[in-house]
Amino acid sequence: MQIPNFQDVRQAYLKIRDQVHRTPVLTSQKVNERAGGKLFFKCENFQRVGAFKFRGATHAVGELSSKQAQNGVATHSSGNHAQAVALAAKLRGIPAHIVMPENAPKVKVNAVRDYGANITFSESTQEGREATLQKVVEKTGATFIHPYDNPDIVMGQGSAAIELLEEQPELDIILAPIGGGGLMSGTAIAASGLSPETKIIGTEPEVANDAYLSFKTGERHPVQSTDTVADGLRTSLSPLTFSCIQEHVDAIYTVTEQEIVEAMRFIWERMKIIIEPSCAVPAAAIFNGEIDVQDKKAGIIITGGNIDLDKLPWQD
Amino acid sequence: MQIPNFQDVRQAYLKIRDQVHRTPVLTSQKVNERAGGKLFFKCENFQRVGAFKFRGATHAVGELSSKQAQNGVATHSSGNHAQAVALAAKLRGIPAHIVMPENAPKVKVNAVRDYGANITFSESTQEGREATLQKVVEKTGATFIHPYDNPDIVMGQGSAAIELLEEQPELDIILAPIGGGGLMSGTAIAASGLSPETKIIGTEPEVANDAYLSFKTGERHPVQSTDTVADGLRTSLSPLTFSCIQEHVDAIYTVTEQEIVEAMRFIWERMKIIIEPSCAVPAAAIFNGEIDVQDKKAGIIITGGNIDLDKLPWQD
Repeated sequence: MQIPNFQDVRQAYLKIRDQVHRTPVLTSQKVNERAGGKLFFKCENFQRVGAFKFRGATHAVGELSSKQAQNGVATHSSGNHAQAVALAAKLRGIPAHIVMPENAPKVKVNAVRDYGANITFSESTQEGREATLQKVVEKTGATFIHPYDNPDIVMGQGSAAIELLEEQPELDIILAPIGGGGLMSGTAIAASGLSPETKIIGTEPEVANDAYLSFKTGERHPVQSTDTVADGLRTSLSPLTFSCIQEHVDAIYTVTEQEIVEAMRFIWERMKIIIEPSCAVPAAAIFNGEIDVQDKKAGIIITGGNIDLDKLPWQD
Repeated sequence: MQIPNFQDVRQAYLKIRDQVHRTPVLTSQKVNERAGGKLFFKCENFQRVGAFKFRGATHAVGELSSKQAQNGVATHSSGNHAQAVALAAKLRGIPAHIVMPENAPKVKVNAVRDYGANITFSESTQEGREATLQKVVEKTGATFIHPYDNPDIVMGQGSAAIELLEEQPELDIILAPIGGGGLMSGTAIAASGLSPETKIIGTEPEVANDAYLSFKTGERHPVQSTDTVADGLRTSLSPLTFSCIQEHVDAIYTVTEQEIVEAMRFIWERMKIIIEPSCAVPAAAIFNGEIDVQDKKAGIIITGGNIDLDKLPWQD
């Protein structure tokens, strides 16, 4: 399979640079003390729509021809990708059709609606979502923007790592969480190109360890359970993202649910930033000792900050 | 009464500049849309100890003579000032004796302990705290660092506004919340000196409106109720801070408890930063229409981000 290369990611970055926020890279003495090394957090929770997903979406929407763009874009997503496609379409002035599961968090549904997208609710199963999307696409002629099985998306997501490495060129390690693998793929391609010495590490919830198993066995495993607090990481790798990860990622580690919640709370308390549970997965793998950062510099992509403030994971 | 002038604040800034974090100034399109103007948030929640209080404390501790410093410093505080004095003393290598009310939030007690300070618990009344402090000072010979009725503290707090105005020199308005008035005083002195055209506005909870009443009547009123969610703003002005405010502040507005909680949640959700309820008071006065920022640039000092994540004010 042909996967995007560093030049593709770089080109994507140059194209979207004026639309995305250049998010800050934050550090914390307290966090470093606990980690035993220097951590650099690329804060995509401050990105437009509150998540890195806007990078890929705005790139993919921008790559459509005028003719394709006329009928708009469509996707199914319970969360950040939905908002990202909605905003990217709005900025290009084309319609967005978003299929959301009927149990999607209200805050995310409202956000998508605020961006002016047309929402169609579906059953919450993967099959239900895909069937509804199929109908929407047939009716509207919109182009389906897959959340990660799409080279343009992968290229766009890689731009966060480019910015991070521009600011901190000497990272020993770069880490990202793995859901569908779009961010991990883009990050890995960017880092391999810009900084070949940097180790590229993926992290995953133990209960949704499809990437870990796929990586270990060399065969793509679908995710078995979606029962993780890290709601951004409940999806399976696609053929595209699996190939990127096989090609460029050095190792994948998993963490427990308790470790995710504890690391998330620690970052909220010490860094005063609001991060989603998914973002805490790489830090959790450092805090629990799985990944050794002693005297090293490690960059972590903080994926987003969209969370229901009425239901925090450390509360009953 | 002799109050600090702009040169004093500037000198303080130059002295503490290497010890304090230069905190970022953040903006948000969503927040601007709601406000109708451009808001610039000086994020002292990212300051050391998680609050602006470190600025004043490190300045006041630094100004002690070697002889004074030998016996250490003491203060009474339920919160951020305690942590700030503890860290400032630790960095100078001298003892800190902190009197904390027995009902102080556990997270704040632990933080003070982590900085190596000696903690003495007292009754939670103002009298109880002062009596216990008196005993501690007599026993140790430590210098009392008042949280705001101290010119060195006021000068240090003003450094946040200096940094904000360096980054955004053309602010039409600068806003801060008023508790004891140390931050408001320093901010007002800094802004009057650096940017005489900028309007200087204080904000307060309606139920703890001592500064509003004092400002209006020209006579210092003690705070009548401490029943506000903005736990940093439950204190009364001192003679020093009242004089600074009378001299330099243009207006004071008050907001309801509900407005504070709503504005705080809005900032958490849209800006992805953790702010204390006190920080939300200026934004609340803009969101409710009391302060008109239409087509204006307004700077807001975000005071801190230390909050008990188990008890958020929008939860029962």
